[in-house]
Amino acid sequence: MQFHKRLFICVAISIFSVHVLASEAIISSEQKQTATQLMQTALESDLGFDIVESLTTEIGPRLGGSEAEERARVWGKELGESLGFDKVTIEEFTMPFWDRGHLHISLTSPYQQELYGTALGGAAPSKESINADVVYFRDIHALTDVKDGALQGKIAFVDGDLMVKSQTGAGYGHANQRRRIGWQHAQRGGASALVVRSVGSDSHRFPHTGMMSKDGDKWATIPVIAISNPDADHLRRLHSLSKPIEISLHSESKWKGEVSSGNVILDLIGSEKPEEIVLIGGHLDSWDLGTGAVDDGAGIAITTAAAALIAKLPKRPKRTIRVVMFGAEEVGLLGAFAYAKQHEANLKNHVLATESDFGAQTIWQLVSNVNPQATILIDEIGKILSPLGIVRGGADVPGGGPDIIPLAAKGVPTIRLNQNGRDYFDLHHTPDDTLDKIDPDELAQNVAAYATTIYLIADSDVELKP
Amino acid sequence: MQFHKRLFICVAISIFSVHVLASEAIISSEQKQTATQLMQTALESDLGFDIVESLTTEIGPRLGGSEAEERARVWGKELGESLGFDKVTIEEFTMPFWDRGHLHISLTSPYQQELYGTALGGAAPSKESINADVVYFRDIHALTDVKDGALQGKIAFVDGDLMVKSQTGAGYGHANQRRRIGWQHAQRGGASALVVRSVGSDSHRFPHTGMMSKDGDKWATIPVIAISNPDADHLRRLHSLSKPIEISLHSESKWKGEVSSGNVILDLIGSEKPEEIVLIGGHLDSWDLGTGAVDDGAGIAITTAAAALIAKLPKRPKRTIRVVMFGAEEVGLLGAFAYAKQHEANLKNHVLATESDFGAQTIWQLVSNVNPQATILIDEIGKILSPLGIVRGGADVPGGGPDIIPLAAKGVPTIRLNQNGRDYFDLHHTPDDTLDKIDPDELAQNVAAYATTIYLIADSDVELKP
Repeated sequence: MQFHKRLFICVAISIFSVHVLASEAIISSEQKQTATQLMQTALESDLGFDIVESLTTEIGPRLGGSEAEERARVWGKELGESLGFDKVTIEEFTMPFWDRGHLHISLTSPYQQELYGTALGGAAPSKESINADVVYFRDIHALTDVKDGALQGKIAFVDGDLMVKSQTGAGYGHANQRRRIGWQHAQRGGASALVVRSVGSDSHRFPHTGMMSKDGDKWATIPVIAISNPDADHLRRLHSLSKPIEISLHSESKWKGEVSSGNVILDLIGSEKPEEIVLIGGHLDSWDLGTGAVDDGAGIAITTAAAALIAKLPKRPKRTIRVVMFGAEEVGLLGAFAYAKQHEANLKNHVLATESDFGAQTIWQLVSNVNPQATILIDEIGKILSPLGIVRGGADVPGGGPDIIPLAAKGVPTIRLNQNGRDYFDLHHTPDDTLDKIDPDELAQNVAAYATTIYLIADSDVELKP
Repeated sequence: MQFHKRLFICVAISIFSVHVLASEAIISSEQKQTATQLMQTALESDLGFDIVESLTTEIGPRLGGSEAEERARVWGKELGESLGFDKVTIEEFTMPFWDRGHLHISLTSPYQQELYGTALGGAAPSKESINADVVYFRDIHALTDVKDGALQGKIAFVDGDLMVKSQTGAGYGHANQRRRIGWQHAQRGGASALVVRSVGSDSHRFPHTGMMSKDGDKWATIPVIAISNPDADHLRRLHSLSKPIEISLHSESKWKGEVSSGNVILDLIGSEKPEEIVLIGGHLDSWDLGTGAVDDGAGIAITTAAAALIAKLPKRPKRTIRVVMFGAEEVGLLGAFAYAKQHEANLKNHVLATESDFGAQTIWQLVSNVNPQATILIDEIGKILSPLGIVRGGADVPGGGPDIIPLAAKGVPTIRLNQNGRDYFDLHHTPDDTLDKIDPDELAQNVAAYATTIYLIADSDVELKP
């Protein structure tokens, strides 16, 4: 019901806007024609797929702060130059480097069986091999209730339910609690290590990695390992049979000091208001288990290809279009914070920001968080996008993507082209995030939506700030 | 067309049979009533799922010849006794044991990236770590053409296409060639190791294991590693970019001498012709990467549950129903050959044999290889099975399953209840072969089909031998 009401409000505003602006359309017929042509060109173009194929094949996995991420920056710079961007810059920053290292984890009682696990980001090494009884917790709430010191000499296992699938990815935050804060309670309980059911909606034998949350400024001092959903099912069944469970694990994951990362910035300089910036992008880093195709090679490809197609128009749009390939997103939005800091004085000139970082499936909704006058512009763009199967949504989904959070916090207006994320968490942060999972046609729909939308905003005079 | 013609012939035979046998039905109305009731009971029973849940949870993976397989035999014996079988026997045999050991395989040029691989059954260890240039072969045919000695100091990689999916699994034999005989040509070429694209129809980051074929009486003297389909795609793309590819690998897989395995035999002794045996079964061993749920915990569960439901009837069928849980199938049908040898003198009394070893999806077809008079019986059974969505097929699919091959070769008649195997090779021989992949309703349909069919054959007087 809420959804229908919102749609009704949008339509009402839209009718009002047409009335007010009848004498001067918010989008000119020339702009509309250019946008429609861009959309068609994008749908027929392989550029987006070619970019993500190149990134995943020529660079491979690219953990934030790694040598591979550095190669990815060089790749991004050369790509920007080859695609005709006016200015290409690498802005470096330093960061602490967490290295996964080698892990071995197996069931040792009631019998020997390999488990499919991976260390969670920020976890400590095991020093030597740990073999201990497992204390089973049905979910994160049960672990949260553990008494201080009650887990001495034990390995805690926190189960949970398979992540609920939804178009919006709404199940992630809930499922993610065991990954984020589980260690704080296991460590308080005195556990030797924590094992968690993977966050993720798939039932494949893949562990899902991801960063844990710091406790104030402190990282875990114990190993924390995610095991695949089928492995967690297995432990649950053994527990329900009252079988004593023992696990052996040896993990080498650790922090390794300061390293360099960086953001790659590709600009198409605006023809009339070059100081005004419409920022799009994705993140260049990936987790190290897969090759970062859907997370977030796709976002890099979609936004770079969209801007590159706009670059081929006879004339630059009025405002500057900036593609930011953020570094070190997975390990704490480090590139995003570095960008916001480095460009702090100039954020007032960032007229809009949005990121593609939710996979490679089709976009189904356009949402915005801009001022009422600008909402009229976004509504009109929504109408132009409708042949792509995209509907207009309201302002209830704030932010423009993870790397946009620091910009949105400083008042930069945002939109988001929401992708269907139903299957995203089947792949996200797993070894299975590889190129074969991307449908070139779905990716092209994304490029078409971004090209159309960003062109129209960049060529507009409408102020978007609330 | 061939299929339609066959159906027509079946119908013709069937009409003929009704005419011939009008005075004395090949299946009595009491038998038909019992069979129909059995079918309904089986559809409503959880027994099949409970068995495969117990096997995969309480025993776990159970490689032929391992300690785990021995535990599985004890489990199978205890299960048979608890389910009311009249006689439960373990028949041991000896076999050579191949151990997978630890493997590490990674791309080292053009950059460092982990590959998801596993040793193929029968492969030799690498002694020390091998790092070598990769010579790419587009398919097994290209490798077959390699000149003797042309691969000295190299690692051969044999690509191929994703296995074609089909209901019957028809794509397996073709795809399997690279796994079976690839090593013979790589070794002849002097390669240090062979890497093959996994046999399997999925595009997940799982390698598929499986036995290689001996060359006469010789096993490979080099490591042979299957990598996942997405990893093989990755190598193909790097090759197409003319990037020099290097791989590093260290494999500990090796033969470890003679060990014990065994078949577990559960008998329901026939009430009138106890010496006549209707043999059904599956294989108790599994590959070690998953927990052997679909291959072949399902087959063990389906056939044991079917016989156990027949055991609950007020009276035993006329003939003996024997469930054989074959040992060491994956590593060369060793239990099947041991059974055929041990029971050689008595094979004339095996009136029929069939195995469930093609996963856990629904059965869609009943095929047979019996004499014309018996075909009439099987046709009538086919009619009774039709509410389960099962159609009657002809005799063009010989054999009754892998473990029945040695029996069929000695003239034992066979039928097969063909399952839908379209998705079977997504899981088969991978780490992803786990309990969550089995749909309890589909499994119950299998149990219903086996219970109905086997009851009717065991309670029949019809001779099935050609």
